Amino acid sequence: MIKKNAYWFCPKCGFKESIWNKYYWRCPRCGNPLDIEYEKIFEPRGNRFLRYSSYYPFKPIKTRGEGGTPLIIDNDGRHKLLYKLEYLNPSGSFKDRGTLLSITYAYLMNYKSVVEDTSGNTGISVALYSRVYGLEATIVMPSYAPSGKKKLVKILGGKIIETPTRTDASKIVLQYVKNSYYVAHIWNYLYIIGASTISFEIFEEYGVPDYIVIPVGSGGLFLGIVHGFEYLKNIGVINKVPVPIAVQGYSVQPLYEKIYGVKKPGEESDLADGILVASPPRINDLVYYLKKYRGKIVLVGNSDIREAQKELFQKGFMVEPTSATVYAAYTKIKEELPPSDIVLVLTGSGLKTLN
Amino acid sequence: MIKKNAYWFCPKCGFKESIWNKYYWRCPRCGNPLDIEYEKIFEPRGNRFLRYSSYYPFKPIKTRGEGGTPLIIDNDGRHKLLYKLEYLNPSGSFKDRGTLLSITYAYLMNYKSVVEDTSGNTGISVALYSRVYGLEATIVMPSYAPSGKKKLVKILGGKIIETPTRTDASKIVLQYVKNSYYVAHIWNYLYIIGASTISFEIFEEYGVPDYIVIPVGSGGLFLGIVHGFEYLKNIGVINKVPVPIAVQGYSVQPLYEKIYGVKKPGEESDLADGILVASPPRINDLVYYLKKYRGKIVLVGNSDIREAQKELFQKGFMVEPTSATVYAAYTKIKEELPPSDIVLVLTGSGLKTLN
Repeated sequence: MIKKNAYWFCPKCGFKESIWNKYYWRCPRCGNPLDIEYEKIFEPRGNRFLRYSSYYPFKPIKTRGEGGTPLIIDNDGRHKLLYKLEYLNPSGSFKDRGTLLSITYAYLMNYKSVVEDTSGNTGISVALYSRVYGLEATIVMPSYAPSGKKKLVKILGGKIIETPTRTDASKIVLQYVKNSYYVAHIWNYLYIIGASTISFEIFEEYGVPDYIVIPVGSGGLFLGIVHGFEYLKNIGVINKVPVPIAVQGYSVQPLYEKIYGVKKPGEESDLADGILVASPPRINDLVYYLKKYRGKIVLVGNSDIREAQKELFQKGFMVEPTSATVYAAYTKIKEELPPSDIVLVLTGSGLKTLN
Repeated sequence: MIKKNAYWFCPKCGFKESIWNKYYWRCPRCGNPLDIEYEKIFEPRGNRFLRYSSYYPFKPIKTRGEGGTPLIIDNDGRHKLLYKLEYLNPSGSFKDRGTLLSITYAYLMNYKSVVEDTSGNTGISVALYSRVYGLEATIVMPSYAPSGKKKLVKILGGKIIETPTRTDASKIVLQYVKNSYYVAHIWNYLYIIGASTISFEIFEEYGVPDYIVIPVGSGGLFLGIVHGFEYLKNIGVINKVPVPIAVQGYSVQPLYEKIYGVKKPGEESDLADGILVASPPRINDLVYYLKKYRGKIVLVGNSDIREAQKELFQKGFMVEPTSATVYAAYTKIKEELPPSDIVLVLTGSGLKTLN
């Protein structure tokens, strides 16, 4: 099932073209990130990620059990905390939602190979779904990525190219694009569509929380979740969008800088390797939606992250440091928050970072 | 919610006593494994493991998203394969189902500490749920257990005692019992009850398959699954029990020996560390149910396991070697099997064994 009337659309210059004509990882005219325009329908049916197939521009062909992750309620004083266990996705992170859509699209467009730059989790996810769909995967990642993550990419049959930094990876990957499908998850709107299903699941299982705490690297997760709730509000299913709380580390804090014009001083935060994205392509959207829904931005450092990860393990949530940032952020601001229900999105598995 | 009329019952000597009176990890009179007698009710309601609360002797108080694992259909020629992804449970293995019941029981019985002997996965599971329920955990495990598994137990706050072999662990753990709750998962009937929910989920999501392939260490998983389908048949919900296919490694093959009187020669199988159980306490039950449902037993070796694990990764299933035994077994006997639908239970996560 594919929706024929689905178009790449550039909100900056107005470029528009059928997604079934050609793939663009960004606007060929002005370089802006592209949206996809198509008819979204909310008719939940079936299980897990396929449950929201009517919402996608096309239906995935093969699945591996992504989505439908647990939502665990645990009270903390005046706050009802709801942990969304995205680390229980098949490859161990929320990325599987967007990757499934992205690789399905590559397959439908007859690509035979895939390339991607990533700090780790997306590489594992892309390697996994590429294999499932019979495509070759080449993953460009910084050498400081956890060795467990690199090993997984290899076992999944992916080829790895290491670079000194995450930024270098984004540049070097372009040399490998040619006839391959460049996933470009930090640009790719399919990852935003995929992440919106997290909101749908929270809504269907629980309702609408007051706050939702989200780690922000490229911001696809943040935008996907906010878009998901906003969509439900627009179609009249719910009457408010949760207040989003964006979390970044002190080391790389483009969102804070964009809003306040200066960098906030603080401890290193390189433990959160998943959110070290210096230039999120959709930074303007992030600022727009953060302001629109009166969101907050919270910065954390390595000692906050280390303590938060330890506490989460002790609560039975085996997450990686990047995921722990949301609990670190909650801990920092909980005294300011009124009695409320708060979703913490736990994005990636701690099992991949044991080495 | 607890069922007051729940009793330890020894099918060998007839010993019977309320489970709310005292905990016995085996029959205090004759040393046999104990069953629990109580009224089982099948009234699915809610999500995941709590969905079958009416079937348990008591309802778990805290959960971490266990159960409700994906069932992925993938055809292989004449066979419809259904992969049950038990490795996506919160601690990365099917053990979480039984452990949740077991630790809930320890909590209800006012224990403050827990001890267990294990080859690995149960240790992680016990450490996790002990922490969730506020109990101290001491885990006795063989030194050859994967270092990733040991590290996880420690991060989860468990104390580790290492022994030369799995058999030594079973002996040495008894020195630590005293006032602690001895989980004794290879004896504990709560693990069998927990594993039955795998059958309920398969039935509710798909129906009844023709075959189900199960790795057999202590046999709790095997018995739980067979009991689950048998129970559904007894209450008239289904009309057949799938043919069970038990998988063991050549190195430790008590079930084969018990049935055929001799050991079958073959390659070492120590890669499958999760099924190296030399003396399963319920071996007679295993033989009985294997014969009752005309099951098969298949033995595999390290090279079968290595190849199967590789193939499973390439299919997008990131499992540990013990889990790969079921695919290895299927590969060995698939030519003998008629066109049919076959469930492969993938028990544990490959993410824990990356080191």
